[in-house]
Amino acid sequence: MADPRTSYDALLAELREIALLSSVGSLLRWDEQTQMPPKGGGHRAEQVSLIARLFHERLTSPRMGEFLDGAGELLATLPPDADEAVNVREVRREYERQRKLPAALVEELSKTSVLGQQAWAEARAKSDFSMFRPWLEKTVELKRQEAACIGAKSGDPYDALLDEYEPGESASNIERVFEELRPALVELIRAIGKSPRKAPIEILSRHYPASAQEKLAREAVTRIGFDFTGGRLDASVHPFCQTIGPGDTRMTTRYDEQNFGDAFFSVLHEAGHGMYFQGLPSEHFGTPRGDYVSSGIHESQSRLWENLVGRSRAFWRWCLPRARTEFGQALSGVSDDDWHFAINDVRPSLIRTDADETTYNLHVMLRFELERALLSGSVSPADLPAAWNDRMRDYLGLTPPDDAQGCLQDIHWSSGAFGYFPTYTLGNLYAAQFFDAARRDLGDLDSQFAAGEFNPLLGWLRRNIHAHGKRYSGPQLVEQASGEPLSARPLLGHLRRSAAELYGV
Amino acid sequence: MADPRTSYDALLAELREIALLSSVGSLLRWDEQTQMPPKGGGHRAEQVSLIARLFHERLTSPRMGEFLDGAGELLATLPPDADEAVNVREVRREYERQRKLPAALVEELSKTSVLGQQAWAEARAKSDFSMFRPWLEKTVELKRQEAACIGAKSGDPYDALLDEYEPGESASNIERVFEELRPALVELIRAIGKSPRKAPIEILSRHYPASAQEKLAREAVTRIGFDFTGGRLDASVHPFCQTIGPGDTRMTTRYDEQNFGDAFFSVLHEAGHGMYFQGLPSEHFGTPRGDYVSSGIHESQSRLWENLVGRSRAFWRWCLPRARTEFGQALSGVSDDDWHFAINDVRPSLIRTDADETTYNLHVMLRFELERALLSGSVSPADLPAAWNDRMRDYLGLTPPDDAQGCLQDIHWSSGAFGYFPTYTLGNLYAAQFFDAARRDLGDLDSQFAAGEFNPLLGWLRRNIHAHGKRYSGPQLVEQASGEPLSARPLLGHLRRSAAELYGV
Repeated sequence: MADPRTSYDALLAELREIALLSSVGSLLRWDEQTQMPPKGGGHRAEQVSLIARLFHERLTSPRMGEFLDGAGELLATLPPDADEAVNVREVRREYERQRKLPAALVEELSKTSVLGQQAWAEARAKSDFSMFRPWLEKTVELKRQEAACIGAKSGDPYDALLDEYEPGESASNIERVFEELRPALVELIRAIGKSPRKAPIEILSRHYPASAQEKLAREAVTRIGFDFTGGRLDASVHPFCQTIGPGDTRMTTRYDEQNFGDAFFSVLHEAGHGMYFQGLPSEHFGTPRGDYVSSGIHESQSRLWENLVGRSRAFWRWCLPRARTEFGQALSGVSDDDWHFAINDVRPSLIRTDADETTYNLHVMLRFELERALLSGSVSPADLPAAWNDRMRDYLGLTPPDDAQGCLQDIHWSSGAFGYFPTYTLGNLYAAQFFDAARRDLGDLDSQFAAGEFNPLLGWLRRNIHAHGKRYSGPQLVEQASGEPLSARPLLGHLRRSAAELYGV
Repeated sequence: MADPRTSYDALLAELREIALLSSVGSLLRWDEQTQMPPKGGGHRAEQVSLIARLFHERLTSPRMGEFLDGAGELLATLPPDADEAVNVREVRREYERQRKLPAALVEELSKTSVLGQQAWAEARAKSDFSMFRPWLEKTVELKRQEAACIGAKSGDPYDALLDEYEPGESASNIERVFEELRPALVELIRAIGKSPRKAPIEILSRHYPASAQEKLAREAVTRIGFDFTGGRLDASVHPFCQTIGPGDTRMTTRYDEQNFGDAFFSVLHEAGHGMYFQGLPSEHFGTPRGDYVSSGIHESQSRLWENLVGRSRAFWRWCLPRARTEFGQALSGVSDDDWHFAINDVRPSLIRTDADETTYNLHVMLRFELERALLSGSVSPADLPAAWNDRMRDYLGLTPPDDAQGCLQDIHWSSGAFGYFPTYTLGNLYAAQFFDAARRDLGDLDSQFAAGEFNPLLGWLRRNIHAHGKRYSGPQLVEQASGEPLSARPLLGHLRRSAAELYGV
């Protein structure tokens, strides 16, 4: 048997190569979305699938098991937050997860995901749920099998799937917080709807030239701390952020000249993801110690900058004069108050990705409830449209006119991503909880923002979140940084304060 | 022993995966030159080197040897230009070449190439040959060892190195043609120098806005046949063309607003390479049957479009009206004759990459002679600057004021690329020979060009060159397409006709 330290070093070398392969895959995908000529798609699919296969083969090879077994002793002698302990623990977690899935099931899931997405895209285009239903049925059945193979301590199959995106979190804990959040939000949104005050949202659909939008967005995210010497901003159909590796983090947006917020807030959002990537300890690249915690923690970084900073009065005290310079005419006659109200408009709508900060969470909760119900069988795929529409009426007072604007709007279920949706609202909850904690530690953030100073906040995030990599789970990190477990209180407080100020409710 | 057909199929599957890996490496390099943020360099180097190692390991693995042995029988039963015969023969050639090189030598060459390039870059910046000399000495010694390991039927070590770039060609054959070309060119250039007629080159350094240059270049290369639905044009420090795979061929240029020709002719040049990539049979991707013949044949495609088409009177009959629309003022008062003369100016200069079509070949011959002399030992690295300057005086009547503008100007020797230089002039020779043959087969190309019709010529190149992949060697292809072996006559004829028309010599 090899010395544990030797096994650990071999494990790290192997992990770094696997991560290099994966990072090559990231570039292939970024390029596909932003640069690749149309005819390159067929070859690109082959490149991506070769790299994915090489990645998967090495991640699940018996060699990895040997290295992990050999290095396992280190866990007994080191504190659980030592680098080596973090790496052995987290790699073993991922390795076990992968090894529990029979190759035939992985292949079937992968094939169904591709074909299911194609069927979904067509079904959505025609707003015809019946075209997608058989694929949803098959996907639900396969995800049940996946959950059964993986298992969960709690016995709840949903936890086995959630674990892929939010390790350490549980459906019951999410439910506890969501149950507190939901009625409060429904009530708040109803009250806002009854308020005589209406946001002057028409000012956001004046003419905002794309080049000026890009200039302002670049200036803003440079100021908050995104490092363009180690990153890029490009255009793509859907905004996203991808890291290619240390020193190379790329985000995208899209520009609509009749819509100010679409690009600007998406760039703040992606820059939040980007600064998290840029803040991970690069010396630990390729190992869990240098990797992000979870989807929810990642989303907390994007939502914090997009909403808690980017929609604040203080931020626009710094940014609005710059926007006035860039857009001149469009902003003539627009007061600071008008602007602040317009970008914080709360209004029930049908599409999640267009939803405001407050109603967004109800879209997510609806999906979380429905995907649990689909997995448990209490809602059958055939009944999904009706169940969806019932909840839309209950939570947001709206009825989708068709399924394209209802249960067919998201790609997630068609690609098999069950367990992903709650991470969006977890991100909002974490963000508000982190932001309260940062305020507590850093004092008057507002006057810093108004002066264009964002370094103290970014520094706090670097120290309390980014620098740790996967050292702590999401729930641990939240408790450690804020002094209490996940709670609906900070987010609700933030949304209620904003509603009180703007809508007088 | 496996059935030869089974071995052949396994060989092909392996080759395709190796080619996919290599094509991923191509994207990594393209992205590095055009998109990567500055801080991404360190990580990129690790990605590139991992992919290169995986590529090399698989290309030289014993498995490949087994597949080749197993498929070898096919050679006995099939004609030499059958797909299977081409693939087995060419893969074996490459496999044997790689296997003859000891791993230690490969590693030493690779390390010396990186460090030698760094030393060269610094030496060139300071124009201090002594800083580069020890690296040149080491590189020459390693290349001698490489040539000895590989061996050559002719017994000439240079042939072993040339074979990497121009399989089937030999130094003695190149020498035969160069010996015919050199004195004729020296004489022609002297006569041109004495002519009272001078090209109005100042019109090329008027103000040509970069956006208009790009627009014209895109229109021109679209017209000659570059397919932008399967390709791109971007900006980079040095122009190049790279294929990522079928349907994805990317070229770059750089724009100088005070220099019309720099970008325009480089885009024609790279589009020539690009159309060759786009014309290779994609169903044979990853195998020699779908690969380009050699560096010289590749260069023939770029030079044909850049010079034989792109500097012709007929081409500009179609293109100059478009240029006048794009550039308006810059071309006011410029006659068709002025333009034609300016873009065909012949004038000795110090730097190869800036040289005109006629003097260019003397720059190449000088390097061919010197790299042979360095390998044979008849010129020592220490004597290189003097030997270089002597030849510059003899061939072009110029003395470099310093080594940066003399023997330090090119990257090739610092990176170990001995045997590459002659492929530039081979490209010019092949291009002229192909062009004569196409004229013979297609009739009046000039009136086609004047009407903006380039399809017949591209079709001829597709049929006679592109479609064959590596089915024939360069020398075979030339003889087959033109009816005679490589000859200096077509190129000399072209250059002499042009000189007679423009300079009256």
